Amino acid sequence: MSTNDELNTNSRWEFSSRRTIEQVEEGLELAPKFNDDDILPCITQHVESSEILMFAYMNAQALRLTIENGFAHYWSRSRQKLWMKGETSGMRQKVHQILVDDDQDCIILKVSLTSPTKGGKEASCHVGYRTCFYREITVTENGPSLRFIENDKAFDPEVIYQGTENPTKL
Amino acid sequence: MSTNDELNTNSRWEFSSRRTIEQVEEGLELAPKFNDDDILPCITQHVESSEILMFAYMNAQALRLTIENGFAHYWSRSRQKLWMKGETSGMRQKVHQILVDDDQDCIILKVSLTSPTKGGKEASCHVGYRTCFYREITVTENGPSLRFIENDKAFDPEVIYQGTENPTKL
Repeated sequence: MSTNDELNTNSRWEFSSRRTIEQVEEGLELAPKFNDDDILPCITQHVESSEILMFAYMNAQALRLTIENGFAHYWSRSRQKLWMKGETSGMRQKVHQILVDDDQDCIILKVSLTSPTKGGKEASCHVGYRTCFYREITVTENGPSLRFIENDKAFDPEVIYQGTENPTKL
Repeated sequence: MSTNDELNTNSRWEFSSRRTIEQVEEGLELAPKFNDDDILPCITQHVESSEILMFAYMNAQALRLTIENGFAHYWSRSRQKLWMKGETSGMRQKVHQILVDDDQDCIILKVSLTSPTKGGKEASCHVGYRTCFYREITVTENGPSLRFIENDKAFDPEVIYQGTENPTKL
């Protein structure tokens, strides 16, 4: 579970304001652009394999906490809640590097992982696979279909997330 | 410039409907979830280096065209327009693999690149760098700032994109 220390911050710095395109694209100030819902997209990549593990969103506080305490924090749109990855499962993401894109409206986290607290291998996907991108699109005569590129689950989601609502929405 | 052939399709297949969470997460049907703006996020990664090149959005037609003709197509939110990457610059993205995430609301394209038509090295970023993620966040006593991790531009954007509006918004 998260402690207050993990979700609060006492720091005094602020994100920079966005003044010119040159400042945003070529400057050294962190001036992120959050969207109309006050969030921005974040791609999480394994620091060693460069495999993309997951895709999620951050609000300003999640970005600030990730920068300050070195573990990945996100904003859950389905739960409308700040969360530290791993607070239920134990599968934390230790942040090694944070990249920002040209117009500063997207973040990459390069992370290493800790294993689930209740058994299984290190992973990032709530379905139980190592990454959320465990299927590829293939094309057949009748149109596209999917093929699994991960064959075994890294952990049992019914054990790790027992009693927790599935975040997938139809 | 795009021809009509590049932005149209005569195929008859449809994306599958989303019926159950199990079907979406564990099934073999491509049943993408587009958001309230009828788009979904797409991460573009170099097929050999695994470097993340850019982040953009696709509408249903862009995803369909990318699947069918093997070059990356996106939806431009700023221009409200379908575009094939490279139609202005010549820097096309040849698609080698397409991945989809657990709840099918995010796509990864694994691509190789062609070089700009008016000179320079292969790249994906409108500012002129190889990737859009050419800066990392560093932490100082006074808060975060940025540091360049790409030092040289791959091409001159004023030559390649002459007369084109910069897509970055403040």
